[in-house]
Amino acid sequence: MNVPASDRPLLLPPIAPIADPELHARLQHRIDRKTKPTGALGRIERLALQLGLILRSETPVLHAPQVLVFAADHGLAAQGVSAYPQEVTWQMVENMLAGGAAISVFARQMGLALTLVDAGVAHDLAPRAGLVSRKIARGTQDASLGPAMSAAQCRDAIEAGREIVHGVPGNALLFGEMGIANTSSAALLLARLAGVPLADAVGRGTGLDDAGIAHKQAVLERALARHPDATSPLDALAAFGGFEIAMMVGAMLQAAHERRVIVVDGFIVGAAQLVACTLAPALHDYCVFAHHGAERGHAALLRTLRAEPLLALELRLGEGTGATLAWPLIDAAARMLGEMASFESAGVSDRGQ
Amino acid sequence: MNVPASDRPLLLPPIAPIADPELHARLQHRIDRKTKPTGALGRIERLALQLGLILRSETPVLHAPQVLVFAADHGLAAQGVSAYPQEVTWQMVENMLAGGAAISVFARQMGLALTLVDAGVAHDLAPRAGLVSRKIARGTQDASLGPAMSAAQCRDAIEAGREIVHGVPGNALLFGEMGIANTSSAALLLARLAGVPLADAVGRGTGLDDAGIAHKQAVLERALARHPDATSPLDALAAFGGFEIAMMVGAMLQAAHERRVIVVDGFIVGAAQLVACTLAPALHDYCVFAHHGAERGHAALLRTLRAEPLLALELRLGEGTGATLAWPLIDAAARMLGEMASFESAGVSDRGQ
Repeated sequence: MNVPASDRPLLLPPIAPIADPELHARLQHRIDRKTKPTGALGRIERLALQLGLILRSETPVLHAPQVLVFAADHGLAAQGVSAYPQEVTWQMVENMLAGGAAISVFARQMGLALTLVDAGVAHDLAPRAGLVSRKIARGTQDASLGPAMSAAQCRDAIEAGREIVHGVPGNALLFGEMGIANTSSAALLLARLAGVPLADAVGRGTGLDDAGIAHKQAVLERALARHPDATSPLDALAAFGGFEIAMMVGAMLQAAHERRVIVVDGFIVGAAQLVACTLAPALHDYCVFAHHGAERGHAALLRTLRAEPLLALELRLGEGTGATLAWPLIDAAARMLGEMASFESAGVSDRGQ
Repeated sequence: MNVPASDRPLLLPPIAPIADPELHARLQHRIDRKTKPTGALGRIERLALQLGLILRSETPVLHAPQVLVFAADHGLAAQGVSAYPQEVTWQMVENMLAGGAAISVFARQMGLALTLVDAGVAHDLAPRAGLVSRKIARGTQDASLGPAMSAAQCRDAIEAGREIVHGVPGNALLFGEMGIANTSSAALLLARLAGVPLADAVGRGTGLDDAGIAHKQAVLERALARHPDATSPLDALAAFGGFEIAMMVGAMLQAAHERRVIVVDGFIVGAAQLVACTLAPALHDYCVFAHHGAERGHAALLRTLRAEPLLALELRLGEGTGATLAWPLIDAAARMLGEMASFESAGVSDRGQ
């Protein structure tokens, strides 16, 4: 008997905890014997420890790092929750592919491969190098009127995210996104899954004024009330969208399953991480949180995620720009483990203890 | 009549204010027309504006950036104010030249040229590539017993710093330092020139315990009391040292005179910047403050300097490590101006205003 495609169950990959007391002790000893006072590299040292545990090495080397930018449109945009028209989604994807967007400039600077994923842009994008087409539909439905996507679409998006990650090289993935109105989806997921009041989850997005925020919040209150039963991570994801967030959930689960380092950008990528982490708590320790942004909900989200972000530059752009700007710090942490001399190897006197 | 060498006056180079309302307006317009919501790159946008003003260009390009690490020894080390023995200064210079220190690793990663300057290390360092020998003496005198250096030595160190900068390429200089006990000199300069109480200026340095801090503070109280008349920037610098700080003062003054970007590392480089800025307030706007470190006095120093640091990673290593880790953000700000598309050039719809 064949199971209809729409009823096919979603399979989530197993994720191993990174904890390893023996390796942890060896890494900490290695860090402490480097030619610097104990703890003097602060946050970089904790990051080095995490990278060593994820990659199961005392001398982890980050190779072929990839920026994956997931783009999609949102039915909620019709409710006027963004300062920009919906067409900006595909226009910015074109700009990213042409090399003119902030993420294009920063990825080029940092030597990071950049891939755009069409997860559901409401526009026909011509195929080309650097663009992966996994369009689930031409944008989600309006979450204030009904579910943003069907359960089958949600599953398909998650599976597509898993397949994409399975097919890219590198042991570190930097996540970014583009999608007009997607701070609305992120705020709804934060409110529903973490119980954060909408007033603390809703922000200016791309630049709403106070009246715009009040309108956005009213729309999102209606959307929340429209889906009282969407309390599980997958039901909430289907109810509130979007396709790019669902695809990132699958991509992150697969990345952690394959023991790759996950670099989390800002508010929207963080919302995807919240869904993924609710599904699989062991995923948390595979994540490096790039920055604390200026979007209002980001502070509550970072608290919810128990995140210790590397940067605080008042960014509110998305695209993976924060992840990309934080990349050299992550690479520096790995290189510290692999390339710095120890007191013994350099012949430097230790403190008199 | 010949003026004796020791009486030769110190000549300070003129420094032009970076302010230029017309260029400022053009830069801000250019930043605002980039394909991102207004202000969405936060701190990076303010940095781009500053770089444009320093380098007098709407599309500044940072070229041949240099890390200059100034090293010297301190007579105060004899008072037991550091957790490490004085020989660590020259041993770490050797480690830096051999490529094993944190600054070596990070500079290599970031593609930055690294030059070590022997400003007064109490050890004979063999000449080699990457090492500039401008030794004023084999360490300063003990500032708790008398002046750390003579007025002539102070002048010579400042002039050496000017000459070194004049001789290196690049339009951006990253400052770092190495010198056992030099958080003591920095704390004394902060206390004397900015009126910060020693209790707020004295910290753990390379890792003193509470008893060690109490001892360090008592020694520094004595040193402050020993030089009640050293209230001018140059008198305080001569009284409290060190040679690496004095040489950085000259180097910064020359860098600003030549309109180069000055990247300020942590507490000790910041103390040099405080002296330089007290001598020439226009220097402030040429400085990018890399990070807020973990050394106690750094918070008070950053407030005094009206600094807006880029990173806060709990670093307390010095060497220029914070400046080097912040470098990609500075480069990103310049590239944003030069390489990002505008709404017009990319054909992206602007918000409906």
